[in-house]
Amino acid sequence: MTDLLASTDPRTGDTVVQVARTPAAEVARVAAAAAAAAPELDRRGREFRARLLRAIASRLEASREAIVALGQRETGLPEARLNAELTRTAYQAEFFAGVIEEGGYLEATIDHAADTPMGPGPDLRRLLIPIGPVAVFGASNFPLAFSVPGGDTVSALAAGCPVVVKAHDSHLGLSQLSFAALAEACADVDAPEGTVGIVFGTEAGAALVADPAIKAVGFTGSLSGGRALLDIINGRDEPIPFYGELASVNPLVVTPAAAAERPEAIASGLVASVTASGGQLCTKPGIVFVPEGAEGDRLLQEAASLIGETAAHPLLNARIAESYRDITAAFTDAPGVKVLATGAAAPNEGRFGTSRLLEVDAADFTPAVAEECFGPSAIAVRYRDAGELRRAFAALPASLTATLHAAADDPDLEALVALVRPLAGRLVFDQFPTGVLVSWAQHHGGPWPSTNTLHTSVGATAIRRFLRPMVWQNAPHAVLPPELHDDAGVPQRVDGRLRL
Amino acid sequence: MTDLLASTDPRTGDTVVQVARTPAAEVARVAAAAAAAAPELDRRGREFRARLLRAIASRLEASREAIVALGQRETGLPEARLNAELTRTAYQAEFFAGVIEEGGYLEATIDHAADTPMGPGPDLRRLLIPIGPVAVFGASNFPLAFSVPGGDTVSALAAGCPVVVKAHDSHLGLSQLSFAALAEACADVDAPEGTVGIVFGTEAGAALVADPAIKAVGFTGSLSGGRALLDIINGRDEPIPFYGELASVNPLVVTPAAAAERPEAIASGLVASVTASGGQLCTKPGIVFVPEGAEGDRLLQEAASLIGETAAHPLLNARIAESYRDITAAFTDAPGVKVLATGAAAPNEGRFGTSRLLEVDAADFTPAVAEECFGPSAIAVRYRDAGELRRAFAALPASLTATLHAAADDPDLEALVALVRPLAGRLVFDQFPTGVLVSWAQHHGGPWPSTNTLHTSVGATAIRRFLRPMVWQNAPHAVLPPELHDDAGVPQRVDGRLRL
Repeated sequence: MTDLLASTDPRTGDTVVQVARTPAAEVARVAAAAAAAAPELDRRGREFRARLLRAIASRLEASREAIVALGQRETGLPEARLNAELTRTAYQAEFFAGVIEEGGYLEATIDHAADTPMGPGPDLRRLLIPIGPVAVFGASNFPLAFSVPGGDTVSALAAGCPVVVKAHDSHLGLSQLSFAALAEACADVDAPEGTVGIVFGTEAGAALVADPAIKAVGFTGSLSGGRALLDIINGRDEPIPFYGELASVNPLVVTPAAAAERPEAIASGLVASVTASGGQLCTKPGIVFVPEGAEGDRLLQEAASLIGETAAHPLLNARIAESYRDITAAFTDAPGVKVLATGAAAPNEGRFGTSRLLEVDAADFTPAVAEECFGPSAIAVRYRDAGELRRAFAALPASLTATLHAAADDPDLEALVALVRPLAGRLVFDQFPTGVLVSWAQHHGGPWPSTNTLHTSVGATAIRRFLRPMVWQNAPHAVLPPELHDDAGVPQRVDGRLRL
Repeated sequence: MTDLLASTDPRTGDTVVQVARTPAAEVARVAAAAAAAAPELDRRGREFRARLLRAIASRLEASREAIVALGQRETGLPEARLNAELTRTAYQAEFFAGVIEEGGYLEATIDHAADTPMGPGPDLRRLLIPIGPVAVFGASNFPLAFSVPGGDTVSALAAGCPVVVKAHDSHLGLSQLSFAALAEACADVDAPEGTVGIVFGTEAGAALVADPAIKAVGFTGSLSGGRALLDIINGRDEPIPFYGELASVNPLVVTPAAAAERPEAIASGLVASVTASGGQLCTKPGIVFVPEGAEGDRLLQEAASLIGETAAHPLLNARIAESYRDITAAFTDAPGVKVLATGAAAPNEGRFGTSRLLEVDAADFTPAVAEECFGPSAIAVRYRDAGELRRAFAALPASLTATLHAAADDPDLEALVALVRPLAGRLVFDQFPTGVLVSWAQHHGGPWPSTNTLHTSVGATAIRRFLRPMVWQNAPHAVLPPELHDDAGVPQRVDGRLRL
């Protein structure tokens, strides 16, 4: 094993940046520094952390040009996409600043001392407090928004938890650049030493998850990668929460009425959603249920024609390119699967992905073609009636999202909602699942294998992953956190009643 | 292996009730019935489930006499304690009825479609929905409140999840009686078939946790038992949340100022807390830090005198009695440990626990005597100064609770709070940790090994364990849950602002 990691340009295979693997002793030092920072980061309070988050947004903006330039070389993603992702990432940091300023996330709850049906009750005051240092694993497909400065990092910092990032091997230079922005922001507000840290290399990541100083892990990546980290966690003396965002096929169902009503609009939205960012989005609709018959045919003809016009897209790294080639080949070889359309051939099949639209009859739809295929492909499953749709659904794993395209007053809608609801965390109606807005109501998570928790990795409530409840019983006023004082200026539930 | 389980009277060892072990096929049938009931239990809505919970409270009250009579024989707990526990258990069911009627637990959140810094945002509506069938493992030490009709069961039903209980072997008859109350309550309100189920025997419990229909596990019991269930969960295709309430030593610190101010009051409260229910409470203060010197001596002399007056208590079962004998023997043999006092000798050492107060110098305090000892004993750790206290704390595992006894304006208080905070989920000031009120602000959970989650098993927020978020994007009004309509009559966060 060489001591150096290298990121490569996915279009050419040329080395872009080399970085040394972090040795085990340095991983332990970084984790210990995070643990040492934790009480002080909590003590500084919400106002301080809001300033830190806004400084992160500013520093990211200030490094935009360098980040976007290097990002194109390391990821093959286009300039506009990286610019938009940087905007989103900076916005997300500012959004969490607002979330913690508002304070509702603390779930402050006060039960004053009182007589109860079980006798005298003590004064009880509950608050969510930071869990401790968090390990964050950057994802390849969102090199900013789900990587070093991404949602896991800023939601953990917002909660009051120091963060140690394991950089993704695919964008080492970008990880260094964006970590520098985090470190500068920490310096700007004089954050405690150890508030943010970074390590490089698979072994360093494993050591980080095993380190007793780490109290939670945020991970966006493959099912196998997530399973490997879960195994490390299960071997710790102290099991810790693991927040994995793993695999998702994102079924999309078109009802007969919708196919009749707007075949072109659905086809064009679908193809845009399947091929966006080279199909390398965790919410890409990979399996599309289309009714048999003329309207469904028309929709798919339109989609096939659009797929035929797409250029090949550089894939994020060699592993993804290889996996895309293998999985699309396996799908194409599966019984009953037809290739409806392919996009332009890749200039370099080892690194680029050619778009593909496949088709299979619902009767032939099995778990073998219901696997996530990361890249610009989708498979259309043709169904005759509700019973066939229901039987085909039995082969589907759960997903982050499920999408329904229906007509107004569609007779199938209610039954379809009941069908897809157990299989997803976000139900999308007449839109497309890619594009996950950072907002108060957003939820990005679903039943296994899409995630393994009851929490989200996008949106305001992502912060809950890094907090634990604490209750103060009969506490002197002087030792209470300010948010647990009476009338503290944050939402509180007092003696059972919510107050603003 | 015989097909019959038997509960015994802890005072005599006589068999009280025999129950057949549930065969694997029956476990699968019960789990499948729970899965079949799940969508309907959700669909019936909060008002229906509040009626179900109130019916449970009524049916428990109606069976009070039989339950308390049989409970005394199976657990050795006194009549008054079992009566109080039944009151608490019925109250808890009614409490959760109120929690779901109020509706804040749903975290209803609406972001209307709007322009955002990242472009047009869709209409997003987030709600917590039931996770699916829950397996509940009854605890030996609260044969009602943490068993068949206990907090895990009623919080899961409140959430909308069917429940399958694995009855504790120690109180088989009580489990049958209280399950009958649950089943009658289900009949009273015509709940879906499969809403509640029960299985008997260790093997049935293991099969239940492995069953794909089960979507979460609530467990109150030993660390080793919890670890065994976690291993089963880690072997499932779909890992599921495990809510374990496991082991807790519940440190209690007396400052020099408090020892000087009120030695008798602290001593008597302490002995009552250590010996209540035979010391078989998960929040029993097992390790008591007392300052060196005359005031600390006086406090311990008073406590020793009170311990000397206590009668031996029948322990819940033979395993607990054996473990109590072994652990107190190991503690007594540990270097530097003195026996300060023992209570009346047990009439039958194999089944009863004799109260014990031990003492050790902080310099000799090691993890060997910092283990949970389930039964009526505590160990006093004598400390000279803050430094010695801090060093002794390094041997302490985390707990459900930590208790501080201080004087008004005690100079040591702030540092002590910082010291104990990472080690507990409830901080108790100048009171005692036993007695866990069921209320809105309550939290019963702490860092590993006391629990393994960021959630509570007592109080209103216990319901969050059995819910997962779901977001509806651009959904037609007709398919939205009623709580996600605009102005739905439950607390909602609308476009970022909390509304009552």
